[in-house]
Amino acid sequence: MGKQRLGFLSDFVEAITRRKRGGEAETLKALARPASERARVACAVLMGRIGDAARVAVAEQALSAYAELDAEERLAFFRSLRDDHGVDADAIRAAYAAWDAQPDAAGVAHLFEVVEPARQTLLRRLNMAPGATLRLVRMRQDLLAAMRVDPDLAPIDPDFAHLFASWFNRGFLTMRRIDWNAPAAILEKLMEYESVHQMQGWPDLKRRLADNDRRLYAFFHPATGDEPLIFVEVALTQGMPDAIGPILTAPDAREPAAADTAVFYSINNSLPGLKGVSFGNFLIKQVVAQLSADLPELRCYVTLSPVPGFAAWLATQDDAAELRGALAGGWDDDAVDALRPQVLAWGARYIAQAKARGGLPADPVARFHLGNGACAHRLNWPADLAPSALKSAHGLMINYLYELDRIEDRHEAFVRDGEVALGAQIAEALKA
Amino acid sequence: MGKQRLGFLSDFVEAITRRKRGGEAETLKALARPASERARVACAVLMGRIGDAARVAVAEQALSAYAELDAEERLAFFRSLRDDHGVDADAIRAAYAAWDAQPDAAGVAHLFEVVEPARQTLLRRLNMAPGATLRLVRMRQDLLAAMRVDPDLAPIDPDFAHLFASWFNRGFLTMRRIDWNAPAAILEKLMEYESVHQMQGWPDLKRRLADNDRRLYAFFHPATGDEPLIFVEVALTQGMPDAIGPILTAPDAREPAAADTAVFYSINNSLPGLKGVSFGNFLIKQVVAQLSADLPELRCYVTLSPVPGFAAWLATQDDAAELRGALAGGWDDDAVDALRPQVLAWGARYIAQAKARGGLPADPVARFHLGNGACAHRLNWPADLAPSALKSAHGLMINYLYELDRIEDRHEAFVRDGEVALGAQIAEALKA
Amino acid sequence: MGKQRLGFLSDFVEAITRRKRGGEAETLKALARPASERARVACAVLMGRIGDAARVAVAEQALSAYAELDAEERLAFFRSLRDDHGVDADAIRAAYAAWDAQPDAAGVAHLFEVVEPARQTLLRRLNMAPGATLRLVRMRQDLLAAMRVDPDLAPIDPDFAHLFASWFNRGFLTMRRIDWNAPAAILEKLMEYESVHQMQGWPDLKRRLADNDRRLYAFFHPATGDEPLIFVEVALTQGMPDAIGPILTAPDAREPAAADTAVFYSINNSLPGLKGVSFGNFLIKQVVAQLSADLPELRCYVTLSPVPGFAAWLATQDDAAELRGALAGGWDDDAVDALRPQVLAWGARYIAQAKARGGLPADPVARFHLGNGACAHRLNWPADLAPSALKSAHGLMINYLYELDRIEDRHEAFVRDGEVALGAQIAEALKA
Amino acid sequence: MGKQRLGFLSDFVEAITRRKRGGEAETLKALARPASERARVACAVLMGRIGDAARVAVAEQALSAYAELDAEERLAFFRSLRDDHGVDADAIRAAYAAWDAQPDAAGVAHLFEVVEPARQTLLRRLNMAPGATLRLVRMRQDLLAAMRVDPDLAPIDPDFAHLFASWFNRGFLTMRRIDWNAPAAILEKLMEYESVHQMQGWPDLKRRLADNDRRLYAFFHPATGDEPLIFVEVALTQGMPDAIGPILTAPDAREPAAADTAVFYSINNSLPGLKGVSFGNFLIKQVVAQLSADLPELRCYVTLSPVPGFAAWLATQDDAAELRGALAGGWDDDAVDALRPQVLAWGARYIAQAKARGGLPADPVARFHLGNGACAHRLNWPADLAPSALKSAHGLMINYLYELDRIEDRHEAFVRDGEVALGAQIAEALKA
Repeated sequence: MGKQRLGFLSDFVEAITRRKRGGEAETLKALARPASERARVACAVLMGRIGDAARVAVAEQALSAYAELDAEERLAFFRSLRDDHGVDADAIRAAYAAWDAQPDAAGVAHLFEVVEPARQTLLRRLNMAPGATLRLVRMRQDLLAAMRVDPDLAPIDPDFAHLFASWFNRGFLTMRRIDWNAPAAILEKLMEYESVHQMQGWPDLKRRLADNDRRLYAFFHPATGDEPLIFVEVALTQGMPDAIGPILTAPDAREPAAADTAVFYSINNSLPGLKGVSFGNFLIKQVVAQLSADLPELRCYVTLSPVPGFAAWLATQDDAAELRGALAGGWDDDAVDALRPQVLAWGARYIAQAKARGGLPADPVARFHLGNGACAHRLNWPADLAPSALKSAHGLMINYLYELDRIEDRHEAFVRDGEVALGAQIAEALKA
Repeated sequence: MGKQRLGFLSDFVEAITRRKRGGEAETLKALARPASERARVACAVLMGRIGDAARVAVAEQALSAYAELDAEERLAFFRSLRDDHGVDADAIRAAYAAWDAQPDAAGVAHLFEVVEPARQTLLRRLNMAPGATLRLVRMRQDLLAAMRVDPDLAPIDPDFAHLFASWFNRGFLTMRRIDWNAPAAILEKLMEYESVHQMQGWPDLKRRLADNDRRLYAFFHPATGDEPLIFVEVALTQGMPDAIGPILTAPDAREPAAADTAVFYSINNSLPGLKGVSFGNFLIKQVVAQLSADLPELRCYVTLSPVPGFAAWLATQDDAAELRGALAGGWDDDAVDALRPQVLAWGARYIAQAKARGGLPADPVARFHLGNGACAHRLNWPADLAPSALKSAHGLMINYLYELDRIEDRHEAFVRDGEVALGAQIAEALKA
Repeated sequence: MGKQRLGFLSDFVEAITRRKRGGEAETLKALARPASERARVACAVLMGRIGDAARVAVAEQALSAYAELDAEERLAFFRSLRDDHGVDADAIRAAYAAWDAQPDAAGVAHLFEVVEPARQTLLRRLNMAPGATLRLVRMRQDLLAAMRVDPDLAPIDPDFAHLFASWFNRGFLTMRRIDWNAPAAILEKLMEYESVHQMQGWPDLKRRLADNDRRLYAFFHPATGDEPLIFVEVALTQGMPDAIGPILTAPDAREPAAADTAVFYSINNSLPGLKGVSFGNFLIKQVVAQLSADLPELRCYVTLSPVPGFAAWLATQDDAAELRGALAGGWDDDAVDALRPQVLAWGARYIAQAKARGGLPADPVARFHLGNGACAHRLNWPADLAPSALKSAHGLMINYLYELDRIEDRHEAFVRDGEVALGAQIAEALKA
Repeated sequence: MGKQRLGFLSDFVEAITRRKRGGEAETLKALARPASERARVACAVLMGRIGDAARVAVAEQALSAYAELDAEERLAFFRSLRDDHGVDADAIRAAYAAWDAQPDAAGVAHLFEVVEPARQTLLRRLNMAPGATLRLVRMRQDLLAAMRVDPDLAPIDPDFAHLFASWFNRGFLTMRRIDWNAPAAILEKLMEYESVHQMQGWPDLKRRLADNDRRLYAFFHPATGDEPLIFVEVALTQGMPDAIGPILTAPDAREPAAADTAVFYSINNSLPGLKGVSFGNFLIKQVVAQLSADLPELRCYVTLSPVPGFAAWLATQDDAAELRGALAGGWDDDAVDALRPQVLAWGARYIAQAKARGGLPADPVARFHLGNGACAHRLNWPADLAPSALKSAHGLMINYLYELDRIEDRHEAFVRDGEVALGAQIAEALKA
């Protein structure tokens, strides 16, 4: 942004930065300009020649104005991020030429500097405002939505992703166990964010936090305070469960002493704006470590997971038409016994053979757990009779097994060779 | 790092990542290889194809091995950072060519990706280990020392600086007041880090924290825990002080109610490894805000600052030979009265006219406060009789004045035109 | 308890106090004796010659055994407290004779010692067990129930009351504001303990904690942890409210800035076992101080209180037969206007003239607030249409006004002369 | 205090209790009366007919005025406590007569009520002021000093002792480990209160808190906040130590893993005003429990204790004249070997046979540990060469051994039969 244009904006700058001591701030808002203009101008000022300390106030102005934008105005805001806060093409060309002539580390450092889009600096400066980090995460959530309307906005997403990966580095996260002594304000968020097996109000929530046979762990980040970034719900059971119903409806009675199994039955990412920043693998690993220390009698760490893509995939399989028909009707016990072998066979094929782009498993939950080094241990049917689960997976669920001494081997085989580790039952079903 | 080399290193990888459950970790250390090799290999493994969660342990191995290195080995380690974790020149050329052919945002995003040296990713991954952030800050401190031995290491410093600027973003910092109820472990660090006016043991420290007329504020970062990154010491006084002695030796007695002035008499950056990451301006601003809220009767925010470059500069001024001679001897009260006009005149010239590269003031403390929008308000002589202050500044000190409603104007005038705001006394002395 | 009997009980003593190191405690319970016997014996042991430190474990045994008792067994336990842990009559006679002969302070000190029933020592020793204080408060709740069955147990209640008054001294209590960030475990207790205007689930609770125009403060005691001993709910309003409905159902929207009145609309004592230990007056006073500091724009501190004894009292007034009849039917707006003067007149008489034993106001809520120095400011009708309020007070409510500069005068006039401070409206209604 | 006198004091009452809202409190102090009068009057008001909530302010006035008293005025204040806040003799006589006629529990309850001196109520009401508990503890410290001047004040001490025993009930205490992360304000108190082996400044303190082989635990009470009531210093060693020097001067280096012994080498009661309220036994028991849980490899819990009365006692033994002479000179190694048998023999007699009034051991430290159920295990000489230890015990020290499975037996034998448990070395020396 040239000197001239900043001159043109000087009344705004003055409004933002020059406050009468002890009095009310004269803000951009007071100038009665539209929020879209205020947001854009504040961003420009933020990139200009003001003192670092003054930037905190300007960043606040920018984020406040942004918060007032409607969907259409947000599109314009993101286009401005793309077009007004990108790179200086001439500077890139010059830096490249210099490096090309003398390709040393100093040249790279300079090239890196000019290739980094200005909006990364802008985002870092916006982040100076109080509570800014969470607001920027929500801004990216808006961007992801905006990209569905205007795919040409896509190139600015990597800048958000790049910064968030750095800010939400695993080293900055802290895991906390959440129980019934946690603040209600946090518990309320859990209810809102739980989407795998939705909570049926406070008594259900309380049950899931019961000390004797349930655990709930979440990652928090200092800059986003009491916002649980991701959380996992654990049931302590005897043996590996084959259906979700008993876990969700078990009364609060069993003693934990007898439990030998920790079941990860629900993992939820809370903030869509953190898409692509990986937390789940770290969380599972740390929860396993914590539980091992607290409850040495646990012998088995396993999930009870949905198979979200199964029904859609099955619908594409010509040979499965008859099975689909049978599943469409209601099942009595006899039907279940009769159908199970087929469901398991198709389920095994889906997990082991259905692939997405890049050769990874088609099922997103499978990709996650197999990528973490777990094994697709056992299919369960019928295991989830909730309407959504019936619709997406005909009620099929799966246990992924985390065997601590095999996790790295499996991870490597999965990443290197795309090898999917299978339990005996699934391997057997695959032969059918 | 190619597949082959990772294969060659497989025993290391295995040692790091494959642990028997419940037993002792077999670590690289157990393999009895030199720390330098362990550090290098762990970094290689960290950049390879292991699971995210396993990286936490590998990062720990790398940092632990690094901690064992001596100065010579550290040089080698940093050269490896430079040479083994840089960029892929072919990838840069290809990405540049693609962008040059079609210069859009997607092309920039890709170019940015390949221009970012691999060591930034490495540093982010090292940061996954517990307590890693502080250890990386100390690693950069080592690097800064190493660069004095081998200037060719300089190009890797921007990568540290770049990440630290992002991690230590103002939005992630929290200001805390430190008083006598703070943990001794923190207070001990203050004593260690105070270098402007060194503390004379615990009673001196306690005096500087006294509730009635002293304050001490520090910035902390969640990832570096109880490490004060920067701290400022404040005295609450009646009127603007003209010497440091009375502040450092005043008994703990005065009541704060009568104070109308907050004197910032010592500002210390604790961690040399955070060089270039600006905290001071934010801290001063927030301390002013805090004090204004707590003590509304304060009317004046001012520093009592050293003039560290004055004596060295004066030694270069031919016209000042006589004054230098006079200052070299002892002063009685008569001599002080006689010399003061000359000292103030030369001091004013030094502050207002002596320039470093780039046209900024030669004095580093002046650069800082003037850059923050303060005014060089008043010179005081003799104001600091400590041997170090006599040597560096002939005992001269200066008050920089923070006038809240003029900070932004002065900042802008300083940045744009190099204009140095002067108080009446200094302006007068300049005419002499 | 004589040596002989302790000898007889030696196996119990041994069971309680002699534990194999590192092994499981052999407890009284393991001896398979009935809980009633275990409780009684543990109390005897507690009063015997064991080491102080061992008493912690014995106290735990006694309280655990007590917790298993049914109502009938509790009666027997309390009789044992009365008969086995009382005083030594001979010792009293001797001490009295000595004091009577030489009535000095030393004689009183000795007499005091022997007159204090042994059960006070017993209760203090029981209080050594972890979490004992709350369990003893619940024990007294049981006692109060037992006294209704067997009034001869009454003489041991003063010992509980005496100790609780000392333990729950105002100086040991801490006031905390409870908001939506409080632990769910505490919030759940509030829902359980609120009996004046019962809460309709979590959304209702959340509304009552809303930051903008509601406050909730509670007293806590260090020994009873997260147990709110008493709490008061406050609404911040414009003007003095004349009905409870709008307060309980107002959506969470109003801004607090405009409020000039703090309305104490519900005060609840949580623990019946603390009957007679006064908290409410302290809590109101401290809440007023807190609100004054936080919200200087508040001008008026007032309650909106029930009149719980009004209907029962009115039923005893022969002249009120017609009014009672009218109130028994439903009211339309016209009826309300017609009836109001009569209701207010009778209400005023009830508040100002109906007396309980000792000449204090018959209405318990009136006794509390008038005793605190408040004024009976205004009657409101109809103000509470909840069935319970219709039944107990025909829907009548009252505002007690706390005028800070008149509280002590009014308190003194009330205590000394039984004078009831009345607002203009009530004074007027009284003339009717 | 009669109505008349309260009438006479009405201006004081008014000054204390009637404050202009929002303005400065008009306090007794403002009336410019002497502190002694203000303290006495405030106590009278506190016992009069003011509202409970107003008592908080009056209690504050009383304690503030008390704090200004000099030693002489304190004597007068305590006499007033004795004479003006005692009992009503007529009421006692009447209550006694009633009980004597019908000696039931109700009669005892009433008698108890009138026999309790009014000053207990006064102390409870004083305790309502903020921070009052600690100030009352210090008031009793003054009283204990005053009793040395005027023994006739002794009868009021039991009232303090009685209340403190109730308030400082073990159930209200919390044990905290103090390490280098504790607030400096607490650590400073430790240095002040340590009187057994005085600390030589902050480095010595830091050494005693070192994580690897030292522990320090203290009891705190919620009402006295950060005041450590009692604390014990522990060294983790290999084997039982026979001299204090190595413990006090050992550099901070040894690893705790190898330690098999926990040595309680210093136990300090901080507040003389809590004389007679037993903490030490509870603290030792809880520290043993904590250490057992944290460091299961510990095999031995032992003290290294002074023998404070040894030299004074030895001076009374005619047969020991020669030994005393020998001890008076300096010792070389040969002398030590020659003298040791005699020192141990006399030491054994002192511990095992020297008795105070009531047949308890003459040595106060022996009384404490033997009363806790420890065994006098081993004498060590020379073990403490500090001048004070040479003077009081000729450098003798002793190990008391806490054997967990024998504590109760030993406690009982000690209390019942005065039996002193002796280790083999001491038993042997006794025969000499």
